[in-house]
Order: sequence, then C-alpha cells, then structure tokens
Amino acid sequence: MHILITGGAGFLGQRLARQLLKDSSLRTLILTDLVPPPVPLDDVRVTSIQANLTDPQSAQRLVTPKTTAVYHLAAVVSAQAEANFDLGMAVNCDGTRHLLEAVRHQAAGAMVIFASSLAVFGGELPAVVSDQTAVMPQSSYGTQKAIAELLVNDYTRKGFIDGRVLRLPTVCVRPGKPNAAASSFASSIIREPLQGETAVCPVDLSLPLWLSSPGTVTNNLIHSLSLSANLFAGIRAVNLPGITITVQEMIDALRRVAGSAAEKIRYEPDEAISQIVASWPSRFEVSQARALGFEGDRNFDDIIRAFMTEAQ
Amino acid sequence: MHILITGGAGFLGQRLARQLLKDSSLRTLILTDLVPPPVPLDDVRVTSIQANLTDPQSAQRLVTPKTTAVYHLAAVVSAQAEANFDLGMAVNCDGTRHLLEAVRHQAAGAMVIFASSLAVFGGELPAVVSDQTAVMPQSSYGTQKAIAELLVNDYTRKGFIDGRVLRLPTVCVRPGKPNAAASSFASSIIREPLQGETAVCPVDLSLPLWLSSPGTVTNNLIHSLSLSANLFAGIRAVNLPGITITVQEMIDALRRVAGSAAEKIRYEPDEAISQIVASWPSRFEVSQARALGFEGDRNFDDIIRAFMTEAQ
Repeated sequence: MHILITGGAGFLGQRLARQLLKDSSLRTLILTDLVPPPVPLDDVRVTSIQANLTDPQSAQRLVTPKTTAVYHLAAVVSAQAEANFDLGMAVNCDGTRHLLEAVRHQAAGAMVIFASSLAVFGGELPAVVSDQTAVMPQSSYGTQKAIAELLVNDYTRKGFIDGRVLRLPTVCVRPGKPNAAASSFASSIIREPLQGETAVCPVDLSLPLWLSSPGTVTNNLIHSLSLSANLFAGIRAVNLPGITITVQEMIDALRRVAGSAAEKIRYEPDEAISQIVASWPSRFEVSQARALGFEGDRNFDDIIRAFMTEAQ
Repeated sequence: MHILITGGAGFLGQRLARQLLKDSSLRTLILTDLVPPPVPLDDVRVTSIQANLTDPQSAQRLVTPKTTAVYHLAAVVSAQAEANFDLGMAVNCDGTRHLLEAVRHQAAGAMVIFASSLAVFGGELPAVVSDQTAVMPQSSYGTQKAIAELLVNDYTRKGFIDGRVLRLPTVCVRPGKPNAAASSFASSIIREPLQGETAVCPVDLSLPLWLSSPGTVTNNLIHSLSLSANLFAGIRAVNLPGITITVQEMIDALRRVAGSAAEKIRYEPDEAISQIVASWPSRFEVSQARALGFEGDRNFDDIIRAFMTEAQ
C-alpha cells in the first residue's frame, strides 16, 4: 500500500499514521499539511511534505501512479470557516477538488477516504438522522463538506476515484490545545480539567452531542480501507456510529471518573458557537455503518478513561 | 426592478423575458448567454450581453449595485455534462459561483432565483420525493446542480444574496430543436410528430416522468419574485409541482389530441439516456410548493394543446 494523508500534521492524521505504520503491507506513507508534519516513529517509509491544496500543482505533486489510497482529513474547521468564508471555500471545496483531480489524472481509481462531518446536517431534522436524511447545512463548514461529498460521489461514479465518505461524529476527547472548531469545547471541558486547568463551556448544559473517541474514529478510518468498492455502490456517505450525550452528562461522567476535576469548568455562553453546534443532530440510525463493520464507543466514561491512559 | 437573466438566449430565458417585460415596474432587463441573446419585443429596457460565466470578470460585469434580481438559468445540460465532465463543472459549478460572488460583492442581498432540477435526486428513492428527501444525484449534471443549491443556500444564510432554489420538473413540450439534455426526447416525441417529422424514443415506454409545461414553469419563475425571503427561511429549495406520466401515457395523449401524429415515433433504446432519466424520480409531494403559491399543470392533453396553440 502507498498511502497519502492530508491534514497529516493534525492529531487525527498523526494518530492514523502511527496505526497504519503497524501494517507491514504499508510500503510508503506521505503525510502532508500546511506545516511539515512530524514523522511518527521515525519510520523510513514516511515522507513529510509541506503543501497547500488550494494550489492545484501542489496537490498534483502529492499523488503518483503508485498511490493506492488517500485519506483526506485536511480542512478549515467549523468556526474558522464561518469566520472566514473565502478561506473555507478555498480549502474545503477547491482544495478537495484539486486533490480529486490529482487522483483522477495520476492514480485513476485509487481509493479516497474523505472525512466528512455531522455538520452537513441541519435545519428541520427528523428525531433520528439516517443515511437517507437530506443534508441542509446551517454553517459554511457543513456546506463545504456537503459539496465535497457530492464531488467524491460523482468522481467515484465516473470511475475517476474509488471514494467513500465517512461522516465523523464530534471527536472527543481530542488531545492538545483548543482549536477553531465550534465543537472544540467538547474536548476542552474534559481535557483541561484533567490537566488541572480551567475550561470554558460556551453552550447550554442540556445540549446533546454525537461523539466518538479518537481511537474509535481512527479504527473506523482504517477499517474503511478493507471494504470493497461495491459495498458502497448505493450509498457512498456513511454516518459513523457515535454516542448521544448531553454536555451535563459529559460533566457527570467526568465527575464519576475524575472527581473534583469537574469543578474546573466555567460557564460562559457564546451565541456564535451555540448556534453552530445546536444546528447539528445528535441522534443517528447507523445500521448501515454497523453492517459495514464500523464501530462505536461503549460509553463516555470509557472514553474519558482511554484519554487519561493515553495522556500518561 | 432591474433584472438579469443568464441563459437568456435559451427558450426559457426568452419566454421569461417576454413575460417580465409585460410588467411596467421592470426598469431594465439584461439578457446574457454564450451567444448574444435576441432582444424580445424590441423593448428598449433590454440589453443583450454576450458573456461566459466561467470567467469571473465576465460575471462581475453583469451585476451592478442596481441589480434587484438574477434568474440563473444558464447551464450545461444533462447529457452534455455527462459527456464532458470538465465543461459541466466549469459552467454549472464555477460559473454559478462566479455569479454568486458578483452579486455578493456588487449587489449584496439581491435576489437570486436558481433553476435547479429533479436531477439532484437519484439512488434509493422513497416512493414519493419530498423537499426533505436526501439528494443522491446519479449524474454529473445532478451533482453540479446539487452543489450550486448548497452554494445558493449558504450565500443566503450569510446574507450575501437572497437566494431561492426552484427544482424544475422536466420541461415539456419545449419548442425548437432537440438539445443535449437527456430528457430532450420527452419534448421531441410530441413536438416532431406534430410538425410532421419522425421522433426517436430512446427509453422504455413504461418509464414515468415528472413534467411541467413551459408556461407553468415560467409562471412559477415569475411568482418566486413576489415571495418574501422569510418564507424560504427553513427551506430554500422547493420542488415545483409537476405531473407524473409514463412515456406510453404521453403518446396516448398525443393520439387523443392529434390522432395519427403518434405514428411518427420510432423506438431506439439508448442505454446512456435511459440510465440518466431512469435515475430521476417521478412522484413528488409538493405541499410546500403549493403553500408558497407555485402551480402545476392540469393534465398532459392540455399541455399538448397549449404547445399547438403557441406553435401557430
């Protein structure tokens, strides 16, 4: 296998890379991002390339006739795409298109695994969202992900690529620093208190979220590599399994697992953040994803414990 | 009102222009297309401009701070977009985006009425399609229309434009010559026999279609001008009313209205055409459109009679 990961400097790209490198059938792994991605495990199979996908030539240089699969994780995240519309369009739409063009012309038929998001959903939603629910994004990020999904679908139908779209739940607990995702708080309110720091909760405690742990999301990204293209014939966008949980229930879990850490959370409502996050659905019917072998987490207590173990 | 119509040389653009010119509150009307559109009725309010929307500068020159509404009808049609993927992307996606950018920067908040299509639907469809049905286009044309819909929605949400998306049924009976739309046959099998010419039917007679007459579509395009933006708040894409009818029933209607003309139809199955057209739905739930005041035709016999009257 010769694999390319965009957004390779991000925590998910790095985690995915480390896991892929355990596979001896992996021959080469290119990690690319706006900054040169760190090379995990000092593995000689890894090449780190600084590139900007908004430049078509840069995108083309990342793909070769040997490329067997591309993980497209690079994106301008939700709150940033809302604040800077043109940047979001350039990276999330044009960048994706340049990457798909590169695969089409230099590695026709190679697999493209596109990390989409529950943010494609919004507006008047049914009580439970399924793979058949119409996307009505209420954010520029969700719009741009939905457009990219349509591109991946049509490039696949035309035989230019072998695409599959995984709609990721909000990933929690993310390690590291807060980012410009509207959902960044979901990790902050667990991560910062566990590190003895104060975290800000900008949304109503009754807000339900749809979450998946980094470990589960990474496993699902890897799993999609093993699925044959015909399984995706009718439906190339899959809502990955997650757990439905309110912010209050997350804090209750933190209290159960880590006691007084939960006292470190401050409540400062933020209208812009709340509006974006509240437009996302939190209940999904994922039988299709389960049938394809994708997994969800068991409960949030375990997610917190896994984060604590990994952070050590 | 100062109105711009893209695709202004097309039969729908010309028909819309003639009807808009009856309104004395219309101050200026710009018609634009790849070829200089004819000026209907020699009306001094009309300016005809040759322009290519794939060029951002061209798009910008079409919109001024006075522009109150844009009808975006220009498109590479279905069979052509399928045969020439890059042209379809350039015109249907990039061209639309350039136009939206022009409105955003030169006539912020102006109305944009986007002619979309039932071709956004496909894949595993419910028995009856509603405004809440997920779009899963099975053609590049449908994909590109769905992408443009998402853009119109997000540009509206951001306040850049006041957009509304009308998903047109297959328009039948179109006057003139066959075109590169996969649905072109639907007009040909009525129009050509009525003109004493032979027509080719490339699809199965049992295939159901979702049709609207040119007159009804034009009325609905005009009607959308009068609707206030807040009516579209939750749902900016409306499936316009149509009638469900099989090809066989269309031919039966032709026989009822025009007798032996129906003998002029030859049957030559075309797999490419059939595949595109069969992926489109033919039954819609249009209560939302009706509530907004959009109209449908009564029956296909009347549609044929109206075409015969207009053709005289």
